[in-house]
Amino acid sequence: MASSKAKSGVLRNAAALLDEMQLLAETQGAKMVINSELWHACAGPLVCLPQRGSLVYYFPQGHSEQVAATTKKIPNSRIPNYPNLPSQLLCQVHNITMHADKDTDEVYAQMTLQPVNSETDVFPIPALGTYTKSKHPTEYFCKNLTASDTSTHGGFSVPRRAAEKLFPQLDYSMQPPNQELIVRDLHDNMWTFRHIYRQPKRHLLTTGWSLFVGAKRLKAGDSVLFIRDEKSQLLLGVRRATRQQTTLSSSVLSTDSMHIGVLAAAAHAASSGSSFTIYYNPRTSPSPFVIPLARYNKATYLQPSVGMRFAMMFETEESSKRRYTGTVVGISDYDPMRWPNSKWRNLQVEWDEHGYGERPKRVSIWGIETPENTLLFPSSTLNSKRQCLPGYGVPGLEIGSPTMSSFPRAQGIPIVTCNIFQLLDQNWP
Amino acid sequence: MASSKAKSGVLRNAAALLDEMQLLAETQGAKMVINSELWHACAGPLVCLPQRGSLVYYFPQGHSEQVAATTKKIPNSRIPNYPNLPSQLLCQVHNITMHADKDTDEVYAQMTLQPVNSETDVFPIPALGTYTKSKHPTEYFCKNLTASDTSTHGGFSVPRRAAEKLFPQLDYSMQPPNQELIVRDLHDNMWTFRHIYRQPKRHLLTTGWSLFVGAKRLKAGDSVLFIRDEKSQLLLGVRRATRQQTTLSSSVLSTDSMHIGVLAAAAHAASSGSSFTIYYNPRTSPSPFVIPLARYNKATYLQPSVGMRFAMMFETEESSKRRYTGTVVGISDYDPMRWPNSKWRNLQVEWDEHGYGERPKRVSIWGIETPENTLLFPSSTLNSKRQCLPGYGVPGLEIGSPTMSSFPRAQGIPIVTCNIFQLLDQNWP
Repeated sequence: MASSKAKSGVLRNAAALLDEMQLLAETQGAKMVINSELWHACAGPLVCLPQRGSLVYYFPQGHSEQVAATTKKIPNSRIPNYPNLPSQLLCQVHNITMHADKDTDEVYAQMTLQPVNSETDVFPIPALGTYTKSKHPTEYFCKNLTASDTSTHGGFSVPRRAAEKLFPQLDYSMQPPNQELIVRDLHDNMWTFRHIYRQPKRHLLTTGWSLFVGAKRLKAGDSVLFIRDEKSQLLLGVRRATRQQTTLSSSVLSTDSMHIGVLAAAAHAASSGSSFTIYYNPRTSPSPFVIPLARYNKATYLQPSVGMRFAMMFETEESSKRRYTGTVVGISDYDPMRWPNSKWRNLQVEWDEHGYGERPKRVSIWGIETPENTLLFPSSTLNSKRQCLPGYGVPGLEIGSPTMSSFPRAQGIPIVTCNIFQLLDQNWP
Repeated sequence: MASSKAKSGVLRNAAALLDEMQLLAETQGAKMVINSELWHACAGPLVCLPQRGSLVYYFPQGHSEQVAATTKKIPNSRIPNYPNLPSQLLCQVHNITMHADKDTDEVYAQMTLQPVNSETDVFPIPALGTYTKSKHPTEYFCKNLTASDTSTHGGFSVPRRAAEKLFPQLDYSMQPPNQELIVRDLHDNMWTFRHIYRQPKRHLLTTGWSLFVGAKRLKAGDSVLFIRDEKSQLLLGVRRATRQQTTLSSSVLSTDSMHIGVLAAAAHAASSGSSFTIYYNPRTSPSPFVIPLARYNKATYLQPSVGMRFAMMFETEESSKRRYTGTVVGISDYDPMRWPNSKWRNLQVEWDEHGYGERPKRVSIWGIETPENTLLFPSSTLNSKRQCLPGYGVPGLEIGSPTMSSFPRAQGIPIVTCNIFQLLDQNWP
């Protein structure tokens, strides 16, 4: 199947027409490696990618949810069943790369997954020169843009602590203190902003800011993120407000065909033993659907039970985190017809807090923190680099020892302080 | 299969989250019917859509080509075969609607196709209140934007004939003559431009033009189209230069999954007898892949032969048409492994003219004009409304009688003056 001789001829003509463009794109793509810290700053504090070569479970249900969230449409009844596709497919990550949409700057990860029969059915993955490890930023700030920040006449008002922490120090003997900031975006484009300090004690980005807002088509409610990388270079990324997320793909493929494409591609890979390529959109996907095997094994080691208390981390609007607690009120198939006995969202839950914000009524065991998996998670002693460790995704997962005393308690039950999709500390603010 | 009870539960949760957004989108979508003439002006002079209720052949190979052209990537060898999917699938058009991408204004058509067993296996389609017939504009102009047209300081220089023909007449006693134009785009947004006539004899759109260029992110090389509808309302559309066409979908679904989605959706519909939904992107797709049955039958009535002379219409950069002539030099399967005995691009051709511009080395019989199908095509006597007739798509196809004397001749062989994907006359140079 993998032979190039087997390549379909149906598109040879189209191929000829497109070869040049593709070559160009690949050449450009090969040179462009997105800064991992900037990617993660945009993806959010709870996102961690699996490592190349590691084993994961791929959940087609979660992938379908991402398609539904992207297209803002649910599939209809015409989606066929794929009896050969299990609800969780053991795979080795053959490759994983970070990307940002050329037009919207939305970050996404491309993963090539190789179905494997067992944990020993793997092979070593050679190191890639351009491969960048999954790494969260140590210094960054995220600001939800106000109407003033995005007006054509205004500048960008920078929170004082952010300006003092991230930007080079101003010469306050100047009148007014100001400097030129050179900042690179996700596509390595360079932007120049005038950073000025005005009374009463305001940090502003002025000249150059409107150009950036216009070019990125930013609206109030969108966010910008600034980080400083290891070389003290300033980088910035963009996050669109949910309402603005593009559904452009809808003019390329019908929603049904997208869902079918996701399932049929995985089913074909599962039955033929070939690899398949997926995209993970952390800002769109309701839940991660490529779960490190180690995480899965630890989370499923103990059986969940009705009445079990748990906690789950959510991202707040300002890219910080908040923990919500709840109780498991039922265990049942989320989609008994299509995916019987699937562990995807098979826990029905009730949250302690009601009110503003959407929290799922069903979760998967590997997405929550339970008393049972407490021993797996230390509460502190993290390395400051926030590097995701192979196969786990949680910094410091295997260092230090768990100390129950430091755990917050909710309704008398100890709750661990992290799960696989979160980072334990937060340097800002 | 079509019962709502059979709806997959896998996405019920996602559905709940998305229902409100979808409802909103549908409500908005239901009210918004794109002007057919504007849609066709943007789609180009060679594009004609099949009618609701009519019979068509759907060619999966052509659909795959559209995906390849959209993503600018060819699929790899992992695309599975779908032995139950024929190379051409007889379908009834259950619905067809015209759309424009919310972000790029690129036009596309959504079609719901119902596979049928025979030409008699059809049922009447009730008329829809909002249904708009496929109709080309009678009065329009298309201009490729210059650097001056898109500069932030400049205005839009309107060709004199276009201004005089389409815009309301200026009061030339004013100094300078000027008026306000109110123009609607594909999304029914209203734009206001100051139309001014300046010496030396120049028509310009000034105030309001830069806002439009900025909002639509137009670059030199893109085109704008103005049409005047039946109510003398001015409408305008946008065409992106090929290089700028978005490949945004690549961050949602991998190219392979898209190809698989296209083929698996059609295969599932063919085997289950359920309908499926496709998108046709006339500016991206290398060739139409939903061909009216009547057109197909007439084109395939006579067997093509090596040495046969033919002509084919192509669109020029200025949205006019040009006929190129050539010779059939071979008849063979385009993709013998995947699609044996398919008529899709089974004619290998050589063009009389070489040089600038891409012309395919393989064509399908229904895409060309041959001496054999001459009798089917009158050369003139067209109705001025340019309405596509049911099942044909060529205006005036069944009116008037063919007159060979008026046909242009290329190398001594009479060539008919139209094919199904063209319109015979053009009211604007």
